[in-house]
Amino acid sequence: MSVARTILRALPRHAVRRTALASPSSLLMHRAPTLATTNVRHGSSIPPRTESFTTVTKDHVAHLRSLLSSETSLLSTLDGSATTDELVTYNDDWMNKYHGKSQVVVRPKTTEEVSKVLKYCYDEGIAVVPQGGNTGLVGGGVPVHDEVVIQLGNLNKIRSFDPVSGVFVADAGVVLEVADNYLAEQGFIFPLDLGAKGSCQIGGNVATNAGGLRLLRYGSLHGTVLGLEVVLPDGTVYNHLSKLRKDNTGFDLKQLFIGSEGSLGIITAISILCPRRPKAMNVAVFSVPSYEAVQKVFAEAKDHLGEILSAFEFWDKQAYSVVRKHQEELGGERKVFETEGDFYCLIETGGSNAEHDEEKLGGLLEHLITNEIVLDGVLAQDTTQFSSLWSLREGIPEACGKAGPVYKYDLSIPVGEMYEVVETMRTRLRERGLLVGDGNPEGPIRAMVGYGHMGDGNVHINIVANKYAEEIENAIEPYVYEVVSAKSGSISAEHGLGVMKAPHIHYSQSDVGIGLMHQIKKLFDPKGLLNPYKYIV
Amino acid sequence: MSVARTILRALPRHAVRRTALASPSSLLMHRAPTLATTNVRHGSSIPPRTESFTTVTKDHVAHLRSLLSSETSLLSTLDGSATTDELVTYNDDWMNKYHGKSQVVVRPKTTEEVSKVLKYCYDEGIAVVPQGGNTGLVGGGVPVHDEVVIQLGNLNKIRSFDPVSGVFVADAGVVLEVADNYLAEQGFIFPLDLGAKGSCQIGGNVATNAGGLRLLRYGSLHGTVLGLEVVLPDGTVYNHLSKLRKDNTGFDLKQLFIGSEGSLGIITAISILCPRRPKAMNVAVFSVPSYEAVQKVFAEAKDHLGEILSAFEFWDKQAYSVVRKHQEELGGERKVFETEGDFYCLIETGGSNAEHDEEKLGGLLEHLITNEIVLDGVLAQDTTQFSSLWSLREGIPEACGKAGPVYKYDLSIPVGEMYEVVETMRTRLRERGLLVGDGNPEGPIRAMVGYGHMGDGNVHINIVANKYAEEIENAIEPYVYEVVSAKSGSISAEHGLGVMKAPHIHYSQSDVGIGLMHQIKKLFDPKGLLNPYKYIV
Repeated sequence: MSVARTILRALPRHAVRRTALASPSSLLMHRAPTLATTNVRHGSSIPPRTESFTTVTKDHVAHLRSLLSSETSLLSTLDGSATTDELVTYNDDWMNKYHGKSQVVVRPKTTEEVSKVLKYCYDEGIAVVPQGGNTGLVGGGVPVHDEVVIQLGNLNKIRSFDPVSGVFVADAGVVLEVADNYLAEQGFIFPLDLGAKGSCQIGGNVATNAGGLRLLRYGSLHGTVLGLEVVLPDGTVYNHLSKLRKDNTGFDLKQLFIGSEGSLGIITAISILCPRRPKAMNVAVFSVPSYEAVQKVFAEAKDHLGEILSAFEFWDKQAYSVVRKHQEELGGERKVFETEGDFYCLIETGGSNAEHDEEKLGGLLEHLITNEIVLDGVLAQDTTQFSSLWSLREGIPEACGKAGPVYKYDLSIPVGEMYEVVETMRTRLRERGLLVGDGNPEGPIRAMVGYGHMGDGNVHINIVANKYAEEIENAIEPYVYEVVSAKSGSISAEHGLGVMKAPHIHYSQSDVGIGLMHQIKKLFDPKGLLNPYKYIV
Repeated sequence: MSVARTILRALPRHAVRRTALASPSSLLMHRAPTLATTNVRHGSSIPPRTESFTTVTKDHVAHLRSLLSSETSLLSTLDGSATTDELVTYNDDWMNKYHGKSQVVVRPKTTEEVSKVLKYCYDEGIAVVPQGGNTGLVGGGVPVHDEVVIQLGNLNKIRSFDPVSGVFVADAGVVLEVADNYLAEQGFIFPLDLGAKGSCQIGGNVATNAGGLRLLRYGSLHGTVLGLEVVLPDGTVYNHLSKLRKDNTGFDLKQLFIGSEGSLGIITAISILCPRRPKAMNVAVFSVPSYEAVQKVFAEAKDHLGEILSAFEFWDKQAYSVVRKHQEELGGERKVFETEGDFYCLIETGGSNAEHDEEKLGGLLEHLITNEIVLDGVLAQDTTQFSSLWSLREGIPEACGKAGPVYKYDLSIPVGEMYEVVETMRTRLRERGLLVGDGNPEGPIRAMVGYGHMGDGNVHINIVANKYAEEIENAIEPYVYEVVSAKSGSISAEHGLGVMKAPHIHYSQSDVGIGLMHQIKKLFDPKGLLNPYKYIV
């Protein structure tokens, strides 16, 4: 341990400022800078509007308004209660890639109001799109055409928390960071964390089966969510806010809604099992010479840290370059590592005994350095440095977004082959003359970066372009999906299908599976009114 | 720590022999001693046979036989390949409580054979019951009338294991203990453990969403199972043996099959994420004066042990008395504790660093003793004692079964109110004159014991009778379910519904939920041929 302590330099306090990403509303405020707002989706064509869906009129709006307790719960251009500009926040996704044309946004204040609105829309044949914090990356939470937006932000009450069992029950519209801060005060932790935590809502997290940064330790929402309250397409309320950890009385229906992207019903509240917050947390970041070295560090981390390993993230030098450039612009110091590498990895531990954790981590660091597995490393000495080190990883998507319009791919592949996909894609884009040197601002592609959740076998590829263009999209898709499919991977590890990947589901699912999904969708939503044109099409 | 060491006496080596329960075939060998085998289910009436189901003939048997690669894969009284006695193992459950009358047992050797058999039965309108190790407790795995039994024991190959990811893929018929032993050799652990591990099969575990002893640490199968291969009622194979930890491409269909008790399809293989086996394990058992003390120990254990707490079990003095009597008969020493208590609890830890774990456990023990929360305690000093201490808890169901026919209830209730249900039931049975002193061999009820998985809010009530009798069953049911329902609990935490609890599902599920379940069942199995008369009726 003394060896590790000697070689590892402490990060100077405030050396790296926390990026804006973690602040509550940054995701909605920052849009890709170079793209003019249009209502045409780039690349693959938009599915045509379903003719049988009712076109919403002023009369519909008046009736919908009568179902709501507050005047401000409905915004519409049809009755003059909103301008088109005021609805842009609900019609456009935060990447400014998908653009709906809805004229009606409903923001119910109670589950009963959601139920009344859905029942009315169902009876009238009006299509709807449920929307949480609108932080999705596949166009799943914004309208494609003129669907009525049902935004859950007004359903924002924490209903109960039991510190004996750790069971937390809250409305769907509670912002993830608000939930986690509430739990932190009680010594607990929300078993999910992700970059958009300041904007995304817990109902949307469950509806999209969000993965994020704590999955390695706490598992997926399929394991932690205990119960749901859901309004079905016809307005029926399925109230199953169970607080029980075990319940084998029939099909586990809640599982169908977890990750269903609002296609079967609208989640209005969740019940979730929250673990105790670790008393001690540590984070260390390393520069390493190769992807093989990343894998070695991962194996050693599992071996030395065992049950206290809470995150293992990695990113490539291209990602590091983009994030450092962005941080430098924000005033952060340039240098973090004496020796930079082709790859970087971040290890987080969380445990109940600080001394034990430090001993375990010290043992790992000594091993990594003695055996020359890493080039350099930095261990956080306080909470500011903890955040700073995390920002090197968490800041990547934000930094990419600042650099230009981004094509985002979110792939699940066995760890050993994970980075091959990034290299394969880089080679392809170079061969096509689209990528000319990493980060070359003159080429059509400004940067191509790879990073992800090593512990979950989940790699993210961000391709930063100078503009969204068919030439680029066609060079990437469906090729990237074919490569993933050949490795029995998933074309969407955590982002979901939305409108972007719905046509590509067959790369990860069999015909039998897709057939069953169609039947389940039809069973719950026979008129196909809920979040149409997406997910299962 | 030194205080704890001084007061806690080590258990003498071999003081308590491991009960027979954990040995591979004990569950099938031991039957309740006092009940004559009849083909009438005691208590609630059997649902009548569905007239539209085809009665199997010799011709059907001949055709079924032609679909199988081996002569020994079909046993039937219709073609003389088996006697009625030889089919008893498949027709009767291990408690000898449920008795089917099937004349045909098929034991396919491949998924393809399962598919062919199911397709034929579907086309012919023949009802079937899937069967794993036949260790279920609610009559879910045996025929009710003349359903063809499809027993999975010949599908018993381990298909693959990846020590990097921990993903284990195996046939449904692999015995749980075989799987766990295989994984142990590689330094991994199956994330499920239960008393019947020597007989039960992993496919059956998944089909019934078994809970067991490791749920506190590793979570439920809904979180750990990654993929399934399932033969649907019409013989279609749904092959989704995913090895991916994250995959958000459509509905998570596998979740529907987990815990569906063979009502939607027959699971033929599973893919599951297995954690590394803890390098160090400890177990300690305490006698405590009250249920409040059990709760205090639980809270302190979570606080001191944090991430290394791997099990927390409790049982009452009545359970202790039954299990000690049984162990004494087997030759075990009488005395385990200097001071016995009204309750007992068992704590298991599993971690990656023996020294750290001992320090954490030592801190807990010191606290418990200094603050006089426990009366006495025993800490295992080696693996034999580890098993011996576990046998005090694991031996309870077996010991009850030896004492007489057992009514078993498996309830999920918030921890604070958990034991109240046991007391309420004890009072009721005393008032009715059925329980005369605990363990009184003269009364209709010989013993009534409470025990369970404290960490999961799961209490088991075993009522040992001198015979299965309507008077007793009517005194218990549905009253016990009403009590649980009033506390928003589950009438089946882990045993499932089967034939026993199917009529009582409304105590834990809403009409909306039950309605959806009926529709899902109909969607997958429109003819209702798969495991009829059970689960969703």
